[in-house]
Amino acid sequence: MAEQNPLIVFTPSGKRGRFPIGTPVLQAARALGVDIDSVCGGRAICGRCQINIGEGEFAKHGITSSATHVNETTQVEQRYDRIKGLPAGRRLSCQTQIRGDLVIDVPPESQVHKQVVRKEADTRAIALDPATHLYFIEVEEPDMHKPSSDLERVYAALKAQWGIENLSCDIGLIASVQKVLRKGEWKITCAVFSRPAGGGNRLAAIWPGFHDKLFGLAIDVGSTTIAAHLTDLSSGAVAASAGLMNPQIRFGEDLMSRVSYVMMNPGGEKELTSAIRGALQQLAEEVAKQAGIALTDILEVVLVGNPVMHHLFLGIDPTELGGAPFALADGMALTFPAREMGFALNQGAYAYVLPCIAGHVGADAAGVALSEAPHESDEIMLCVDVGTNAEIILGSKKRLLACSSPTGPAFEGAQISCGQRAAPGAIERIRIDAATLEPRYKVIGCDRWSDEPGFEEAIAGTGVTGICGSGIIEAIAEMYLAGIISQDGLMDGSFAARTPRIEPFKRTFNYVIRQPTDESNQPLIRITQNDVRAIQMAKAALYAGVRLLMDKLGINEPAKIRLAGAFGSHIDMKYAMILGLIPDCDLTRVQSAGNAAGTGARIALLNKAARDEIEHVVRRIEKIETAVEPLFQQHFVEAMAIPHKTAEFVNLKKVQKLPPLKSVETLGDDGGARRARRRTQ
Amino acid sequence: MAEQNPLIVFTPSGKRGRFPIGTPVLQAARALGVDIDSVCGGRAICGRCQINIGEGEFAKHGITSSATHVNETTQVEQRYDRIKGLPAGRRLSCQTQIRGDLVIDVPPESQVHKQVVRKEADTRAIALDPATHLYFIEVEEPDMHKPSSDLERVYAALKAQWGIENLSCDIGLIASVQKVLRKGEWKITCAVFSRPAGGGNRLAAIWPGFHDKLFGLAIDVGSTTIAAHLTDLSSGAVAASAGLMNPQIRFGEDLMSRVSYVMMNPGGEKELTSAIRGALQQLAEEVAKQAGIALTDILEVVLVGNPVMHHLFLGIDPTELGGAPFALADGMALTFPAREMGFALNQGAYAYVLPCIAGHVGADAAGVALSEAPHESDEIMLCVDVGTNAEIILGSKKRLLACSSPTGPAFEGAQISCGQRAAPGAIERIRIDAATLEPRYKVIGCDRWSDEPGFEEAIAGTGVTGICGSGIIEAIAEMYLAGIISQDGLMDGSFAARTPRIEPFKRTFNYVIRQPTDESNQPLIRITQNDVRAIQMAKAALYAGVRLLMDKLGINEPAKIRLAGAFGSHIDMKYAMILGLIPDCDLTRVQSAGNAAGTGARIALLNKAARDEIEHVVRRIEKIETAVEPLFQQHFVEAMAIPHKTAEFVNLKKVQKLPPLKSVETLGDDGGARRARRRTQ
Repeated sequence: MAEQNPLIVFTPSGKRGRFPIGTPVLQAARALGVDIDSVCGGRAICGRCQINIGEGEFAKHGITSSATHVNETTQVEQRYDRIKGLPAGRRLSCQTQIRGDLVIDVPPESQVHKQVVRKEADTRAIALDPATHLYFIEVEEPDMHKPSSDLERVYAALKAQWGIENLSCDIGLIASVQKVLRKGEWKITCAVFSRPAGGGNRLAAIWPGFHDKLFGLAIDVGSTTIAAHLTDLSSGAVAASAGLMNPQIRFGEDLMSRVSYVMMNPGGEKELTSAIRGALQQLAEEVAKQAGIALTDILEVVLVGNPVMHHLFLGIDPTELGGAPFALADGMALTFPAREMGFALNQGAYAYVLPCIAGHVGADAAGVALSEAPHESDEIMLCVDVGTNAEIILGSKKRLLACSSPTGPAFEGAQISCGQRAAPGAIERIRIDAATLEPRYKVIGCDRWSDEPGFEEAIAGTGVTGICGSGIIEAIAEMYLAGIISQDGLMDGSFAARTPRIEPFKRTFNYVIRQPTDESNQPLIRITQNDVRAIQMAKAALYAGVRLLMDKLGINEPAKIRLAGAFGSHIDMKYAMILGLIPDCDLTRVQSAGNAAGTGARIALLNKAARDEIEHVVRRIEKIETAVEPLFQQHFVEAMAIPHKTAEFVNLKKVQKLPPLKSVETLGDDGGARRARRRTQ
Repeated sequence: MAEQNPLIVFTPSGKRGRFPIGTPVLQAARALGVDIDSVCGGRAICGRCQINIGEGEFAKHGITSSATHVNETTQVEQRYDRIKGLPAGRRLSCQTQIRGDLVIDVPPESQVHKQVVRKEADTRAIALDPATHLYFIEVEEPDMHKPSSDLERVYAALKAQWGIENLSCDIGLIASVQKVLRKGEWKITCAVFSRPAGGGNRLAAIWPGFHDKLFGLAIDVGSTTIAAHLTDLSSGAVAASAGLMNPQIRFGEDLMSRVSYVMMNPGGEKELTSAIRGALQQLAEEVAKQAGIALTDILEVVLVGNPVMHHLFLGIDPTELGGAPFALADGMALTFPAREMGFALNQGAYAYVLPCIAGHVGADAAGVALSEAPHESDEIMLCVDVGTNAEIILGSKKRLLACSSPTGPAFEGAQISCGQRAAPGAIERIRIDAATLEPRYKVIGCDRWSDEPGFEEAIAGTGVTGICGSGIIEAIAEMYLAGIISQDGLMDGSFAARTPRIEPFKRTFNYVIRQPTDESNQPLIRITQNDVRAIQMAKAALYAGVRLLMDKLGINEPAKIRLAGAFGSHIDMKYAMILGLIPDCDLTRVQSAGNAAGTGARIALLNKAARDEIEHVVRRIEKIETAVEPLFQQHFVEAMAIPHKTAEFVNLKKVQKLPPLKSVETLGDDGGARRARRRTQ
């Protein structure tokens, strides 16, 4: 019988082949196209190529595998184990040589394109494949017999050892190449960015010797807050997160007042740009400090933001976004050196800005699309990101539409008499007894309801300072359920006879939620008729935008709804549906998408193909401008009622079928109260 | 007989075709691929597409052409004529419509790829085809029914109106796009750079309305002087030139002392870089002022320089160039935003740096190669650029070799007791009477020889301050011809008996050229034995480098020689050959190449294909490192003699056959003197 080379089977891929005795396992894996990571290129430095050797008879593969079918642990492996630690049973595949048949398991963390775990259920997996990779190389020393420059030999090593071609780099990096090569004794680690504008590969950074720290920043630039996630580009793990108030707030609480500031102060966009860029750098420094890494280990930044933020962090005057025809200066995806935006990270770090969808549907909406993937959905999906404008995407893999709707800042607590941002002291939950019209409420920063013992003591520190977005929505919905306001949103003055909580105010009425009991400086918390109107306008705008897109698609109800952003995270979907903020939909299929825009940024950071994907999707999306759609105005007017006229009963029926929610009371009571009220009319 | 469309023949291309009556001539030209320029795309704005209509019978083409075979001059042409002037008989081809058979002449200035005239005879023509072009476009206005960003519509217009795709731009340009579009009422001019690193096209600049000013800078950064030529990229004409002393001189007169400065002062390269960059910007501002253009009209910069200058203007520490193995940090051609080098021109201007050939054969030598084109020569050509190192290229289209040879700064007047840079007051020509040993000389800034009446009065302003490179070479050669120094370069002390001009000095002798006649502060001008040695060393190094390359090619004599740089422009080739600086060659085939490095920079500026060409040529050139070639030392020792041993008689014979040179005396006398001296030995 002829001698055969040993058979090697890799799991979980199932790839198999025969290799001569003595072949390193890493080499066999590469020959078969098995996905095993390596930064050092087989030099037992990086420890990325760890494997497990199967023990026993593998009937499925028809072979017997054993740890005796490989060479013994080598000295360099022992050294690696001493210094960095090797889990029991693990070998470095670059050091392990084939001696007989083997079943070799490649654990997930050793795969290059490992799946990145996302916390959220019902989301698609992301394969780790960032645009920047590290490569450890050994560079030829200069030789007077074969004159060539140091950089040329770096490029030659990247080509010979890693197959990377068409390289270029900054002159700033060239200035460091000789010192780094000599310090590293001709062994260096290179960061190569594979997606510069124009094409080719960019040598972005070099370090003497072996370097395995490679990080990226995913940043969601919101009008109110900026959130940054520092992500390890080798593992996909979030290494640190931080948030910061947008310092532009001093130029205007909401977007339009910032645009106005620029309009009134020519050149004022420079102040706004400088403020936001300063905050971005501050965030970068904060997360780097948290994670204990150097700023120079950050090689990429991915940014999302609404169109005004997008323009301002790029240094573009947003004035044109302040009036029709709402033209973006640019909405295409952008890739450029991060330092051009004022970032002081690694000098060679690149920034990627997701594309905007339209004049008021920004790169944040593109982030939501990338995160929630309506373009991959078989069913029709509605994604809504609520800010000063609601950015709305509706559709499925067949067809996608997007528009924005001018909700104004009411949902964020602005333009509401007692409104405030979600912060300690703000009322976030509220219930109104339909019989007594007495409210009870919860305040951010306190676990007790206002009618529970010890509430006043618990809130003594902050007091009750106002009502945040979710509190206002619940307040209006509960006022409606208790009959205090009619379907048209009018405060019923006759109730003033039943309770002093209904008080006359400038020819209309207020509903008083909290009357400070003592001489404390705490404010009177109440809902005015104007507040009700503001929420009606906002929810009508949101609904009208959604309705417009549903018209275009010819549907009456999306199969699933994702509410993104802080708004989506904090509001109770039940109340959103009672008010008619969102269209009819099985309430179990309505979900908060969390900070989906930020998640989209992180996806684009972790997977370079996701950048092509979102750029392609954005080009495919049909942009609808609500301002030129006659139907929008009609939908808006119709949607002012609570809930919107067509949906009233449908919604209530659905809401009643829902199981109790944990953090809020069951609907039974409220629904019952509402029915009771209706009977009294 | 069937009606046929009119026949149109374009000259000088000879391209012909039939087109329907009414077709604009520009359109017919484009259809036939006739090279006619246009920036405005047929809108009668730019005036680049001028043509002449043939009148009469053109037997060769078989047609009768007449100005009546086109429409009458249009109102827009008349307007163009009023404002900018149209030469008699000229039409704008975009406004001229075909009515009958035509012979149409496209004058050279209307061709896109017009030939750029070079002053030097015997040089190849350059076709104008810069990397940056201007395009006038009309951009669609924003339309809420078809939302798209302003920049997207600019890209779309460039694609639709000019066929330009794969565009990207800086975020700085994006910040200006909305204002420029609105100011230009949706008509703008774009500068597109077609060779960014990585690939694609870069939108480099935009102007409202029509803009036809487009300039580039070609800069030769020498150790001593920096020369800049501002070039009109539309015509190829030099608009302004300026030179400046290299301000790095305060850190060291010659290259090696500047490298030493950096070695002794770590980080000192930053001062040197900052000095040179400041000077480059100053030069740019000076030429822009001379030409009356805005700095923002400058869109390209092409730079050459020796390796140390190359490193310093790029911000690279040149220390490694100061010792073996003389490794360049980078020698590849570089393309990057000019602002990264500290240039304040147009924000979108690009810099291109020619490749270096080897450790001591720099981008200036590549410029010489591009200018003199040895790679296109059938015969073997020697190109020499003399500085602190001689950069030598030898070969033909078949094979090219290059090396550098450490001539030191003696040829530039440095390290010579009375040496100085070529400047008013410096002796540049000298003759020695073989009988009397009396010298006569000419001084820079004065037309008379020292033995002509009125000489002393004429030089009274400057005095005689020293000897420059060409003066030293002539002095040593004349001393040899007069017998004052032997073939081995030894001063003959016995001559001291014949004339007080031979004076004893530290165990050797000096030859006194000028003894100040009064109490003026003018220096004593003399040649010392050490001066002779310095020139011998320099010329031996130069010759040995050339000899080494000739060995490698297996030849004894190049077919032609080009001496580049100030050295090549000022020395008398006859004396160069007498001294044995250059190898045997028919003296009529030895030419100065002028500032060939600068010319090479200008070629790379005017023709983008020339960049590919020189990058390809530089890769092809075989680099020889003289330091590791054992034969070099042997050649060097042998070449110390005057002239080098093997060439002595051959050279003299050739020199004697030469016709008299205009600015110098005929060789007959000197040759006779020399023969006379040899007879006396």
